[in-house]
Amino acid sequence: MNLKRLNRKEIYSGKVFTTIVDDVEYPSGRKGIREIARHPGGSCIVALFPDQTMLMVRQHRYPIDKFIWEIPAGKLDKGEDPLDCAKRELEEETGYSASQWEKITSIYTTPGFCDEELHLFLARDLKKLPGGRRLEEGEQTMELHILPFAQVKSMILSGEIHDAKTICAVLLADNKLR
Amino acid sequence: MNLKRLNRKEIYSGKVFTTIVDDVEYPSGRKGIREIARHPGGSCIVALFPDQTMLMVRQHRYPIDKFIWEIPAGKLDKGEDPLDCAKRELEEETGYSASQWEKITSIYTTPGFCDEELHLFLARDLKKLPGGRRLEEGEQTMELHILPFAQVKSMILSGEIHDAKTICAVLLADNKLR
Repeated sequence: MNLKRLNRKEIYSGKVFTTIVDDVEYPSGRKGIREIARHPGGSCIVALFPDQTMLMVRQHRYPIDKFIWEIPAGKLDKGEDPLDCAKRELEEETGYSASQWEKITSIYTTPGFCDEELHLFLARDLKKLPGGRRLEEGEQTMELHILPFAQVKSMILSGEIHDAKTICAVLLADNKLR
Repeated sequence: MNLKRLNRKEIYSGKVFTTIVDDVEYPSGRKGIREIARHPGGSCIVALFPDQTMLMVRQHRYPIDKFIWEIPAGKLDKGEDPLDCAKRELEEETGYSASQWEKITSIYTTPGFCDEELHLFLARDLKKLPGGRRLEEGEQTMELHILPFAQVKSMILSGEIHDAKTICAVLLADNKLR
C-alpha cells in the first residue's frame, strides 16, 4: 500500500452503498483524498438446465435508465455466505432452486473507487418452486427468460449484452463447460 | 421505466464519483429511494504486440487494499471521446502509443447503483514513446508488465485475475483474435 490514511469521513450511509472520503498522504509527502463507494458485495448465478438453456433476467436499471440483460444476482445480506446468497437470490428472482452448485470465481466490478466483490456461481439441477418468484418492491418489471446458453454467448460476442458480471460469468462458465 | 422520480439530492460531488439520492414512487404508489454513484465512465485497452504479448498493469487498489492485475484504463475527461481517452491513457500509463485501434464493446460495471460505462478497445501496432510513462500522483507504484496474451487468459481462467473489465476485455478480444 502506497498511501497513508490520515482521516476518514463517512459522507452518506446508504441502503445500497456508503460514500467514504479519506484524507491520504502520498509517498511524496503530498496530500490528497480517496473516495470510496463501499458496497456489501453480492452473488450472481449462471443457472443451467439439462437442455443447455439458462435463466436470464431483463430489467430496467435506474442509474442508466435502460432495460438490460443480466444473469440473476443480488446483494449479500449482512454476514451472509456468498453461496447462501446465491441460493436465496436464485429462488427470489427466478422461482427456481438448484441442487448442484459450483463456484466460478469472484470479480471486483470497479476497484478504482468501489470495494464491491461479486461471487459468480454455476448452478445446475434446477427445480421450479411451487411458490414462484418473490420479487422486491421495484423489481416487479424484472422479466424472466429462458434462453439457450449458446444464444446468450452469441449476444455477448455480438455486443448485445453489456452487463460486466454477466459477460464474465457466462464466458467463464463456457470455459468450464467445454 | 417503472419508477417516477419525485426529487433528486446531490449528496456529495466527488473527484471520481458523485453520490445522488432520488426520492421515487413505485407503480404501486409506495415511495422509496434510489441511490446512484455517478461516474464519468472510462476506456480500457487490450494492447497487443505482434508476438502475442500484451501490456498489463499491477497496482494497489485503495478501496480493496490489494494489488491486482488489470489492463491499462482510465476515466474519461469531461466531454472526451472514448477512443481519445483510450489513446491518452495507454500513453500515460504504459509509455506506448498504438496506431491500430478496434472497439471491442462497452460494459456497465455495476448498473444496479452506478452509471459507469467502460469502453473496451483492442490496440495494435504499438510504439514505445521516447518520453516514457506519465503517471499521476498515487499511481507511482503501478507496475507495467508485458505478458503473453495466452498467459493472461490462463490467469483469468485459473482465477488469478479478478478485475471485471480485464476479464471481459481479454476474453472478448480472444474471441475476436481467433
